[in-house]
Amino acid sequence: MKTDIEIAQSAVMKPIGEIAAKLQIPEDDLEYYGKYKAKLGDDVWNTVKTRPDGKLILVTAINPTPAGEGKTTTTVGLGQAMAKIGKNAIIALREPSMGPVMGVKGGAAGGGYAQVVPMEDINLHFTGDMHAITAANNLLSAAIDNHIHQGNTLGLDPRRITWKRCLDMNDRALRQVVVGLGGKTNGFPREDGFMITVASEIMAILCLADNMEDLKLRLGRIVIGYNYDNQPVTAKQLQVDGAMALLLKDALKPNLVQTLENTPCLMHGGPFANIAHGCNSIQATRLGLKLADYCITEAGFGSDLGAEKFFDIKCRFGGLKPSLVVLVATIRALKYNGGVPKAELGTENLAALQKGIVNLGAHIENMQKYGLPVVVALNRFATDTDAELAFAENYCKEKNVPVSLCEVFSKGGDGGTDLARKVTEMIETNDGSQRFAPIYDAQLPIKEKIAAIAEKIYGASGVVYTGKAEKEIAQLTQLGFDTIPVCMAKTQYSLSDDPKLLGRPSDFSITVREVRVSAGAGFVVALTGDVMTMPGLPKEPAANRMDIDANGKITGLF
Amino acid sequence: MKTDIEIAQSAVMKPIGEIAAKLQIPEDDLEYYGKYKAKLGDDVWNTVKTRPDGKLILVTAINPTPAGEGKTTTTVGLGQAMAKIGKNAIIALREPSMGPVMGVKGGAAGGGYAQVVPMEDINLHFTGDMHAITAANNLLSAAIDNHIHQGNTLGLDPRRITWKRCLDMNDRALRQVVVGLGGKTNGFPREDGFMITVASEIMAILCLADNMEDLKLRLGRIVIGYNYDNQPVTAKQLQVDGAMALLLKDALKPNLVQTLENTPCLMHGGPFANIAHGCNSIQATRLGLKLADYCITEAGFGSDLGAEKFFDIKCRFGGLKPSLVVLVATIRALKYNGGVPKAELGTENLAALQKGIVNLGAHIENMQKYGLPVVVALNRFATDTDAELAFAENYCKEKNVPVSLCEVFSKGGDGGTDLARKVTEMIETNDGSQRFAPIYDAQLPIKEKIAAIAEKIYGASGVVYTGKAEKEIAQLTQLGFDTIPVCMAKTQYSLSDDPKLLGRPSDFSITVREVRVSAGAGFVVALTGDVMTMPGLPKEPAANRMDIDANGKITGLF
Repeated sequence: MKTDIEIAQSAVMKPIGEIAAKLQIPEDDLEYYGKYKAKLGDDVWNTVKTRPDGKLILVTAINPTPAGEGKTTTTVGLGQAMAKIGKNAIIALREPSMGPVMGVKGGAAGGGYAQVVPMEDINLHFTGDMHAITAANNLLSAAIDNHIHQGNTLGLDPRRITWKRCLDMNDRALRQVVVGLGGKTNGFPREDGFMITVASEIMAILCLADNMEDLKLRLGRIVIGYNYDNQPVTAKQLQVDGAMALLLKDALKPNLVQTLENTPCLMHGGPFANIAHGCNSIQATRLGLKLADYCITEAGFGSDLGAEKFFDIKCRFGGLKPSLVVLVATIRALKYNGGVPKAELGTENLAALQKGIVNLGAHIENMQKYGLPVVVALNRFATDTDAELAFAENYCKEKNVPVSLCEVFSKGGDGGTDLARKVTEMIETNDGSQRFAPIYDAQLPIKEKIAAIAEKIYGASGVVYTGKAEKEIAQLTQLGFDTIPVCMAKTQYSLSDDPKLLGRPSDFSITVREVRVSAGAGFVVALTGDVMTMPGLPKEPAANRMDIDANGKITGLF
Repeated sequence: MKTDIEIAQSAVMKPIGEIAAKLQIPEDDLEYYGKYKAKLGDDVWNTVKTRPDGKLILVTAINPTPAGEGKTTTTVGLGQAMAKIGKNAIIALREPSMGPVMGVKGGAAGGGYAQVVPMEDINLHFTGDMHAITAANNLLSAAIDNHIHQGNTLGLDPRRITWKRCLDMNDRALRQVVVGLGGKTNGFPREDGFMITVASEIMAILCLADNMEDLKLRLGRIVIGYNYDNQPVTAKQLQVDGAMALLLKDALKPNLVQTLENTPCLMHGGPFANIAHGCNSIQATRLGLKLADYCITEAGFGSDLGAEKFFDIKCRFGGLKPSLVVLVATIRALKYNGGVPKAELGTENLAALQKGIVNLGAHIENMQKYGLPVVVALNRFATDTDAELAFAENYCKEKNVPVSLCEVFSKGGDGGTDLARKVTEMIETNDGSQRFAPIYDAQLPIKEKIAAIAEKIYGASGVVYTGKAEKEIAQLTQLGFDTIPVCMAKTQYSLSDDPKLLGRPSDFSITVREVRVSAGAGFVVALTGDVMTMPGLPKEPAANRMDIDANGKITGLF
């Protein structure tokens, strides 16, 4: 089989104007970025906003493993398959961060015959959204240090600046730095650090903003640190909320691209799924619902992190009513959850599958707690045996959950028609959108919200708080940040906060070590462990293999 | 009169496809970035490369003063005026850096009725070229620290890394930093600093590269520092030249925009005019020569820095043959050169004008040394008196140099028709392109090249070298970097290296304090003083006044 980039490069893309025309978007409303990318601004929204909403489908997964689950590939493949069965669908994805592309990861726009194209552009600068967020983030940082340098009338405590600089690069040397060295003309020295751009609160804000007005209000509310009186200081007090919004004027507009089979795809925003909520933008999802009968979107990591935040943060803020959940699993990942090491996943092991499949069971039940029907997508690998597949299918049937064998990686949309049929049939007979409800009431105290997530979704017996976290919760409550949703930062590898507890752990408590506010995004972040917000490069970075020749032919981006 | 942004916002722009069609560029060759910006890739070049070349006109200026000379405004206005007298012209400008836009400067795309539009986009992210350069620059930095972290097989000396990180932001706190703090997982601590993106060698490289192949070779040649054996280490040795070239694949393509009067404008690249050569890209200039009968371009600062490097670096590398120089001056700036303080420039002062006009004389003579005819453009201000204007006109006539009163700021192209006529008549009768020659032979030893510039252009009596510079010249010569052009980093405010010596100083020597190689760009940089490569924000940054409302209306960007 060809590599991802070979498949992508041999794709026959349609001009993006043709893709838009099929969505009944007037060509004049498009903002082209080359021939195959376009931004959809307010003109498009104003044209379509009175159309009825389509059905919202969330694709999520079991806990991720080193074996790979293929969640984005399944999302793209399902979108392609919809057309094959005569349905009108659009995909709404996150846009990839460039940093990891240079590191280990390669591309992040699906795989095999279920990819979004032009993959080279999408994986590099795309339409510049990440760079705009970087610029807005770092303008705020420059304004902070400039404010201190120019007299510090707000009394900012340089030891308590929580706002960090950012870059869309994997660069461990920037995690912890000292800035302002070199004497008086360079400002006051202080400790600082860089995050990768997708971890910036501005990314979360962009993805949760209703429109330009809301964006600006949220930017203004960002808490950048504390003054010597222990009071929070905001971006608005530094008077750069307007300039930041201006820098984001184009980044705020959803991007339209297409899949290998010319299915339309909105690709917009991509916040971290730990310290942020891990979903594409509310604006893109809303637009997707107006543009097609089915809008298929995904959330980061497993359902305990990604789907939970999709429902409890994104759907809550955006007033979105999902109809159904597609839960992606693989035989390999389920065996891994049953204790099989990565190197042995290619060998049949029904005992391990039986032991590990409880992870799938937990995710199914969790999704049902939101009132939603579930369809399981088994992303098929060549090493899966008939007995293993039959076991997993039977497990789902016993839970009364439809299951579909997916081969979209190797077959494109044709490999997902069964899934597409099961999804559309289920929505026709059992649409969850009217039953859908978040798992907790945002008005509850912070600890009760965390307990609801930990107990109902993670299956924890309780929550332990460090002294630091207790103090921070008390302070945030006193400041009035207690009636907003909670964004959990937890390992993605386990339902618990211990990455080694695979399967479906029980009798565990989770420990909250730190609690912060992302006041612009509009949530409190509860951290249950160290969260890496700036990745590093490996010994042999993917960048070392990348090249472009005199004719513009690209290699090494996979 | 309206503000610049008000004028720009009331402009009636044509779709960029219409502008391209007038240049006989097939619509299908364009890469749109929204409706009013397009990138011109290899397809365009291949379509036009066999056309005959137009005439190349360089707009330069006397030494800059706080009074402002209006060089870019004159360049844009001359382009607009060409159409008014029935000539077919294109403008080739540098693209603005966003950092200073947030600081003091406001926009940098001309002024009044001689502006390039869409000015908001041009002054912010434009087509993403700066961000791509930032990314390529910082990928190299990440690769450096990662190489050291992963075992340092090249033996890089962390004390002698000369490559710096960059951001397109005015941020003094980043001038001098310590990176890699926080322990083993974050790499090795070392001193580093950030430059503003336009000061990155990658910007100079992008502007001097012939094509993708040349770009990649130049990127590979970048010297990032020295190893423990005192030998230079290159980007190619770090194996990221391919990935850097890939990151620059779109940034390498010239951008097409238009003026307020729909004159086509190529806006591409913008290297610093001190540590780099301060001109737009060779590719854009070459393209401009194919697209119109006259290609009007400009260079940074006064002619002693900008024009000298335009001729001796850019034209030499690009094989460009300029036909004529337009030298911009104002009565106010000439009086300033005659010792009048900024606050009193509005008052008639013929004695000061007489004293300061020798600065104009020096610049005229310097340009003639390159074999080129000169036309002086007197950029008119309301406070200029008839007597002052008559004096300056007479001064030029005595030197046998045509002079034209320019009012393009207040009248657009109509205010520059006299200049346009004088320029085109001069080219018809006295085209300098066949006489044109650089001021020094690149094969001469480094010190002889510096002496040629200092004596012939600055009027210095000699050059003094610090011990450090002597040592560096010896090392660079030994490494074989002695037969490439020299890029002088000198104050722009004086013909000498002392910013206080106005007018036409004599009997001075210049002091070279430091000599570095920009091996990728292909020149040796001789520094005659401290060069600020990362500006700071002022007490009231321009950013604080910027805003965008719910309807997308932008204010405060001027």
